[in-house]
Amino acid sequence: MSDYRFRTIGISAKPNVERVGETVRRLYDDLRRRGFTVLLDPVSGEMLGSGEVLPLEALGRRCDVVIAVGGDGTLLNTVRAVAAHDTPVIGVNLGRIGFLVDISPDEVGVRLEEILRGRCLTEERLMLKAQILRDGRVIHEELAVNEVVVHRWITPHMIEILTHINGRFLNAQRADGLIVSTPTGSTAYALSGGGPILHPTLDAIELVPINPHTLTNRPIVIAGDSEVKIAFGAAKDMRAEVTCDTVSIPEVLIDDHIVVRKAAKPFRLLHPLDYDFFEILRVKLHWSNC
Amino acid sequence: MSDYRFRTIGISAKPNVERVGETVRRLYDDLRRRGFTVLLDPVSGEMLGSGEVLPLEALGRRCDVVIAVGGDGTLLNTVRAVAAHDTPVIGVNLGRIGFLVDISPDEVGVRLEEILRGRCLTEERLMLKAQILRDGRVIHEELAVNEVVVHRWITPHMIEILTHINGRFLNAQRADGLIVSTPTGSTAYALSGGGPILHPTLDAIELVPINPHTLTNRPIVIAGDSEVKIAFGAAKDMRAEVTCDTVSIPEVLIDDHIVVRKAAKPFRLLHPLDYDFFEILRVKLHWSNC
Amino acid sequence: MSDYRFRTIGISAKPNVERVGETVRRLYDDLRRRGFTVLLDPVSGEMLGSGEVLPLEALGRRCDVVIAVGGDGTLLNTVRAVAAHDTPVIGVNLGRIGFLVDISPDEVGVRLEEILRGRCLTEERLMLKAQILRDGRVIHEELAVNEVVVHRWITPHMIEILTHINGRFLNAQRADGLIVSTPTGSTAYALSGGGPILHPTLDAIELVPINPHTLTNRPIVIAGDSEVKIAFGAAKDMRAEVTCDTVSIPEVLIDDHIVVRKAAKPFRLLHPLDYDFFEILRVKLHWSNC
Amino acid sequence: MSDYRFRTIGISAKPNVERVGETVRRLYDDLRRRGFTVLLDPVSGEMLGSGEVLPLEALGRRCDVVIAVGGDGTLLNTVRAVAAHDTPVIGVNLGRIGFLVDISPDEVGVRLEEILRGRCLTEERLMLKAQILRDGRVIHEELAVNEVVVHRWITPHMIEILTHINGRFLNAQRADGLIVSTPTGSTAYALSGGGPILHPTLDAIELVPINPHTLTNRPIVIAGDSEVKIAFGAAKDMRAEVTCDTVSIPEVLIDDHIVVRKAAKPFRLLHPLDYDFFEILRVKLHWSNC
Repeated sequence: MSDYRFRTIGISAKPNVERVGETVRRLYDDLRRRGFTVLLDPVSGEMLGSGEVLPLEALGRRCDVVIAVGGDGTLLNTVRAVAAHDTPVIGVNLGRIGFLVDISPDEVGVRLEEILRGRCLTEERLMLKAQILRDGRVIHEELAVNEVVVHRWITPHMIEILTHINGRFLNAQRADGLIVSTPTGSTAYALSGGGPILHPTLDAIELVPINPHTLTNRPIVIAGDSEVKIAFGAAKDMRAEVTCDTVSIPEVLIDDHIVVRKAAKPFRLLHPLDYDFFEILRVKLHWSNC
Repeated sequence: MSDYRFRTIGISAKPNVERVGETVRRLYDDLRRRGFTVLLDPVSGEMLGSGEVLPLEALGRRCDVVIAVGGDGTLLNTVRAVAAHDTPVIGVNLGRIGFLVDISPDEVGVRLEEILRGRCLTEERLMLKAQILRDGRVIHEELAVNEVVVHRWITPHMIEILTHINGRFLNAQRADGLIVSTPTGSTAYALSGGGPILHPTLDAIELVPINPHTLTNRPIVIAGDSEVKIAFGAAKDMRAEVTCDTVSIPEVLIDDHIVVRKAAKPFRLLHPLDYDFFEILRVKLHWSNC
Repeated sequence: MSDYRFRTIGISAKPNVERVGETVRRLYDDLRRRGFTVLLDPVSGEMLGSGEVLPLEALGRRCDVVIAVGGDGTLLNTVRAVAAHDTPVIGVNLGRIGFLVDISPDEVGVRLEEILRGRCLTEERLMLKAQILRDGRVIHEELAVNEVVVHRWITPHMIEILTHINGRFLNAQRADGLIVSTPTGSTAYALSGGGPILHPTLDAIELVPINPHTLTNRPIVIAGDSEVKIAFGAAKDMRAEVTCDTVSIPEVLIDDHIVVRKAAKPFRLLHPLDYDFFEILRVKLHWSNC
Repeated sequence: MSDYRFRTIGISAKPNVERVGETVRRLYDDLRRRGFTVLLDPVSGEMLGSGEVLPLEALGRRCDVVIAVGGDGTLLNTVRAVAAHDTPVIGVNLGRIGFLVDISPDEVGVRLEEILRGRCLTEERLMLKAQILRDGRVIHEELAVNEVVVHRWITPHMIEILTHINGRFLNAQRADGLIVSTPTGSTAYALSGGGPILHPTLDAIELVPINPHTLTNRPIVIAGDSEVKIAFGAAKDMRAEVTCDTVSIPEVLIDDHIVVRKAAKPFRLLHPLDYDFFEILRVKLHWSNC
């Protein structure tokens, strides 16, 4: 084991997908046989029916690295859970490449061997921290790997969103919502909303209005260390929700403020040495076959 | 009165706006003095504190024409209420032109005189009828002047929307929702969603996906007599709402179908003879001052 | 031959593509063997080295139907040449479906047999006619199946484009150019410019500004029988070109007017009975595999 | 004069605008009266008919600061000419605020006084340097404050553009062209092309494809120290031009490469202390009056 950079390996998995179960089984047996300590999140634990199972957060504390098996969503959840411990994450997909899960099940043996020996790229990417402030006090705090979304809730009307950047007023826009996205999130929901692609290592944050009433309310890219503060214009029956990746914070009140800034630490993704973000773009966005 | 094309005039108004009250008062007094029968909707009735007040629907049955005083939203509501009786509608704004309310309070005396004498343009515009079908039976039916919107509800996830046109499968798209818009609605929410402007008299319907996951899911314009049928892809916690203009039908179930087609009758808008849709576009979209 | 609706068949082909040559050879031999009269355009004539060769325009006059073998561009050229004679056109592709050339070489035998027996869909689609007016006189006239494009020429500056619809002023916009597109062209250049997809049988014309300075200058869809007149704002070194499909008319002067309206006759496309425009959209725009 | 940070002041002006002449006259007289040395570019020199006139480049060498009077285009030209000498620039507009020329003629006296005393904001913004490489040798080199544009030239066909970032292949796209924009340029042509707004101080470069054939070819934002290399796909009659701001380099050949990277030095803009980029956005993009 002395050749390996990582000794204790965690596995997290996407639930209810048969192919995931097969890959997890193969990974688990292989890593154990070679002498690694392998810890499981509840989903992969249930798939295997044996092994040491821990909550996802605890995997971050105990493991040198965590392998997420599934789609980009599985990796997002894993990162959010383990990032507090600086634990790097490796993404294994289900046979179709994702923006984040870049190792296919077929190659997982060879690829993993190299990564565990430290022959890999370590990519640091910024995360966001969203705080809900009520009467000036933080009542809720949440991390986001992809994006923080403020969206009208229940009401069929647009909401008025007031944005300040570093304490300076940017604009008041009527819209369905506003996406505050990381570079990682720029190829997810923000792209559907008309935002640009940001290179993953760019130290920047992207603001994308959702269906703005004013057509000139265009996406804006600001420095990564900016503080974004969102408030709401007065409207008697306004309701909004805030979403961090897939976690919803629905009961946001009209007088609440949402403050979004870069999280204290980035998350770390490990890639094979031939990792190529542009190739992933070409595949995922069908740039080649047109 | 023999010179006038219209004798019984209805007035509907936007609530809680002082300027509206002044315009309604002036209109009411002036029309009564000149011998017209004037009927009021509940909002304008409360503003005046006197006069014959009827539900908005009844105005449509009793009046030769209804004047809506307020913004485009007021006119939308009025049209939806009176259109069943083929009653034409005139829009008076609050001092700022709308896409539909094109007469300013300052000009209302002169403009109205001409229109009531029949020196006006009568514009017929298509409306949509949305039906919610459950187990093959229509459980809800609603008219829309601007648009029918199917939108994810409560859930932070995109929904999968399956669309058929005239019984033929168009596509399955993951998105926040889908806008089915009239030409009238093409300058409203559909424009915010990235749809084109349709000339108001075009016999066409516009489908605009809201933040589609697949970037090539672009707005489509189809013939006005098309039947649009919308269903949902299987997803365990999918929830959606349907909105017709501002009326929300939230409890749409995953197995429901939404059928949208042109309403049996168009609505009729009366304009001054110098009405110019392009000028309204130029003003509303700030085409001139750049 | 009495069972066939068409007796004299023309073939036009895309030059310099080997697979086209094979398909043309197969088509020619097969049709001749079965007793049809087959006439060739110069390109297919050169490919075969024998047979009766005529200019493309003459094929339109002599043939009951013309088969275009190649890509959408080949079919565009064929339609423009033969449309004056109402000659219907059939599109055979090179192995990858186009928006217009919908029969694959593999199926061409069976498909063609059915079409030539009259078991087909006949689709009529509108074409545009562009006229360049100088000092009020038409100095150039050209048909377009897809689109008429007015574009800045040589100069790196935007040009100012003044548009009138049916004699009424629409707007003056600074832009790289303006696309006036048919429904057929709505899936071509106009789509790249941000225009909507128009159903092919819609009687409508689409105006798409190219990179307009004013962000609210959005695509507009107008009735098919509209007259679009384009003029230029004064600018000392303004130069522009007009393009009809792939035919360029470069020397347009600053005082010229470009008038675009629906051509007197539509063109006719013959399709197999199971032709499905929506399926073509799904394939060409990769709607299914995401 | 000991209180002033700047002693020798240059003036550059937009030609042929009467209001510019008045402002230049006022500036010149006022600065001279107060003891500053004032040097003129040829345009302002001709306006005044007296004073020491130098080529714009020489102003950069001789002056402590240059005042550009006109629109954003005038300031662009001034910056390109003087940037090699690190000379800061102040922008005075014609009565309507620009993105870069933020001082109005009415306020010029007070504003300038403060700036010349050093009570100002100094903003450093990145410029681009474009190099045309033929057979591996640099045959042309040009600076750009806003953007470098590669555009099809004369031909009505799209061109195929191959892009590498830091030596790594990004994509091959068929399009009318490609915009490589600075943050400063993100509110100019790149915005018309669908690009996002970049905050002026962001260390980033934006790539915006112009009317790409493939709809998923979206704007991309990359780190400011990236090297962008552009080549062309093989096409027999391909012609392209490269434009740096308003300077056109038309005779680019199909085998040439265009390399764009950050210029060695940024340019420096001086602003009044209450300068607010967001307010300029709100005014220029009509965010407030909707």
